[in-house]
Amino acid sequence: MRFATETNRLEAFSDGVFAVIITIMVLELRPPLGTGLRSLSSALPAIATYAVSFVFVAIYWNNHHHMLRASRGIDGRAMWANFNLLFWLSLVPFSTAWLGRNPSAPGPTALYAAIFLMNGIAYALLSRALIRVNGHDTAFSRALGNDFKGNVSLLLYLVAIGAAFFSTFISDVIIIAVAIIWFVPDRRLEPLININRK
Amino acid sequence: MRFATETNRLEAFSDGVFAVIITIMVLELRPPLGTGLRSLSSALPAIATYAVSFVFVAIYWNNHHHMLRASRGIDGRAMWANFNLLFWLSLVPFSTAWLGRNPSAPGPTALYAAIFLMNGIAYALLSRALIRVNGHDTAFSRALGNDFKGNVSLLLYLVAIGAAFFSTFISDVIIIAVAIIWFVPDRRLEPLININRK
Amino acid sequence: MRFATETNRLEAFSDGVFAVIITIMVLELRPPLGTGLRSLSSALPAIATYAVSFVFVAIYWNNHHHMLRASRGIDGRAMWANFNLLFWLSLVPFSTAWLGRNPSAPGPTALYAAIFLMNGIAYALLSRALIRVNGHDTAFSRALGNDFKGNVSLLLYLVAIGAAFFSTFISDVIIIAVAIIWFVPDRRLEPLININRK
Amino acid sequence: MRFATETNRLEAFSDGVFAVIITIMVLELRPPLGTGLRSLSSALPAIATYAVSFVFVAIYWNNHHHMLRASRGIDGRAMWANFNLLFWLSLVPFSTAWLGRNPSAPGPTALYAAIFLMNGIAYALLSRALIRVNGHDTAFSRALGNDFKGNVSLLLYLVAIGAAFFSTFISDVIIIAVAIIWFVPDRRLEPLININRK
Repeated sequence: MRFATETNRLEAFSDGVFAVIITIMVLELRPPLGTGLRSLSSALPAIATYAVSFVFVAIYWNNHHHMLRASRGIDGRAMWANFNLLFWLSLVPFSTAWLGRNPSAPGPTALYAAIFLMNGIAYALLSRALIRVNGHDTAFSRALGNDFKGNVSLLLYLVAIGAAFFSTFISDVIIIAVAIIWFVPDRRLEPLININRK
Repeated sequence: MRFATETNRLEAFSDGVFAVIITIMVLELRPPLGTGLRSLSSALPAIATYAVSFVFVAIYWNNHHHMLRASRGIDGRAMWANFNLLFWLSLVPFSTAWLGRNPSAPGPTALYAAIFLMNGIAYALLSRALIRVNGHDTAFSRALGNDFKGNVSLLLYLVAIGAAFFSTFISDVIIIAVAIIWFVPDRRLEPLININRK
Repeated sequence: MRFATETNRLEAFSDGVFAVIITIMVLELRPPLGTGLRSLSSALPAIATYAVSFVFVAIYWNNHHHMLRASRGIDGRAMWANFNLLFWLSLVPFSTAWLGRNPSAPGPTALYAAIFLMNGIAYALLSRALIRVNGHDTAFSRALGNDFKGNVSLLLYLVAIGAAFFSTFISDVIIIAVAIIWFVPDRRLEPLININRK
Repeated sequence: MRFATETNRLEAFSDGVFAVIITIMVLELRPPLGTGLRSLSSALPAIATYAVSFVFVAIYWNNHHHMLRASRGIDGRAMWANFNLLFWLSLVPFSTAWLGRNPSAPGPTALYAAIFLMNGIAYALLSRALIRVNGHDTAFSRALGNDFKGNVSLLLYLVAIGAAFFSTFISDVIIIAVAIIWFVPDRRLEPLININRK
């Protein structure tokens, strides 16, 4: 197992990647070709999709940050689980750009939900890798152990993928609903943060 | 309420987002198609707009930084108020790109002022959320309580939005005037910075 | 020789560059023009190339980070050796974009391997510069001294460059094989990290 | 005058901006349209221009970093002098892109040298603002006071701007010559770094 300074470093690097991801998505928002305010309305679906992705990445930043701070360290497996999460997060600008241009098309909607699903799975794998580091019978592991909210989210994303081919509106509602249930940060880990870090 | 280390972390992450936003705007400055210095003049409006946006983001970085350092901590509400501010800041490259290409069109000018207005409102909301965290009868709250300069700025941005449809020149003057009155950092909070952080 | 705080600073700056490089590569992933899932398959080679480059940069981040933490300091030569490495790393998005668009063309495949080769050489030069700083008869130098895995990688990249003109498939296999042998972080330096930094 | 923690923060933010600037320049390196290695040669001028700009920004990062660490603090004027420097640095990707596409055209060559000149002036202004903060009769001010190398660089950039309209080759030689004389970090300040920071 590695040391607390290693966790700090991985956290700082991950924060840098989060900051770049959340910001470069805006490069996909192309200024309208016209100059009237009406021509701006053509950019609205892309802006709305960007807003949802922004909230999604913000939620992940917040929970990721809490989980890493609560952990007593990382090992090689957790480090790669973290890179795996960063990889799927880095694909969010890609799926956001496709959906932003085709807001009511089944394919882009399904991909958008699928990338979110992969992020959810990657987060669960990172969570498991950190439980291994902290030991199975610790406060950290008990706090993370029964991840009901996480599992429900994965299920809902799966439904959103399938629903996209019948009604993209239903997919949109599901995706926004998952964001709302994650809006509140993961309070299970807060008591641990002061124990493992000074 | 969260701890000082949490505030540091949110500040570091926000700084990363500020650094990316202030820099990626330059990607909108496309090199001229010609090679003569005269062809460069076609890029001048975009460069001027970029310069104003650069100063705007720099002012926000400076005041944001002062406000977070002076606060004794953050809570969930303040964290989301901060993400809300980062969201509106991240739209500055978008409105800058549109105005840079159409420097004297009413629509892009109005949107440019409107995004600045939304940033002003988001900053006021963050300020209120931090007053809640610090308590209403503290030096922090008294220092931030009567935000005359902030309120005047919001009003001026509103005027700039309306004026854009009559004379974009008036809007430009107002927007630059607001930047000038914010040029000096918020000195109200300086005495507090050393009290709450070691 | 410079001080540990200098090394921390160079490391933090390098981490920022790593974070931007690993993330902006995703901007090359253009959303498909169609909206069907089938049109997504045209993006698959670019996504696969991006994934390999992502893993490559992640491996370099991890080893770079270990090497700098284990060193007792840096000097001017090491600082420029580090910038040389960052330069070649910054060309990875360029070679990734070219290969992603032409996944089975000899030229882009050879360039992709050549940029990886240059990174490997730059890393070896940085390693030598740091051995000079730490002294030739230290634990640091003995740990890094006989870089078998590094030398084999350089040789394999050379083979991959040549092979590209006969079979790009063989080049791809070699490049992925090198990534796999570097997947595990450089454990030679772990015992040193706690000695030189508190 | 502000405190050392303020300087650290401004330095960290500036480092973020440096890291983004030095990296996003690579986005201007468009992959060649063809797939043969010969088509790569069309990208060579852009790559060479990028390499010069990369070294330029690296030199500025190194000297900027040394100067801020040696200073005992910053004030509002120094903060804006620093943002002024970051603004001119952020235009380097723009002038690099224009020159990279038109490597032997007078206009882009002159602009490239002019942006370097503006950076040199902005650096001199930041240096003066910091001398004011540290006091005119301090070791810091004596170390920075007679900036022969800096003044010669400004003069050489001026010559390079003019020369561009007769021979861009002469301008290129001058610009590279200035980079070479700045390759070595500013040793005048090294003894001060340990005095003002712990």
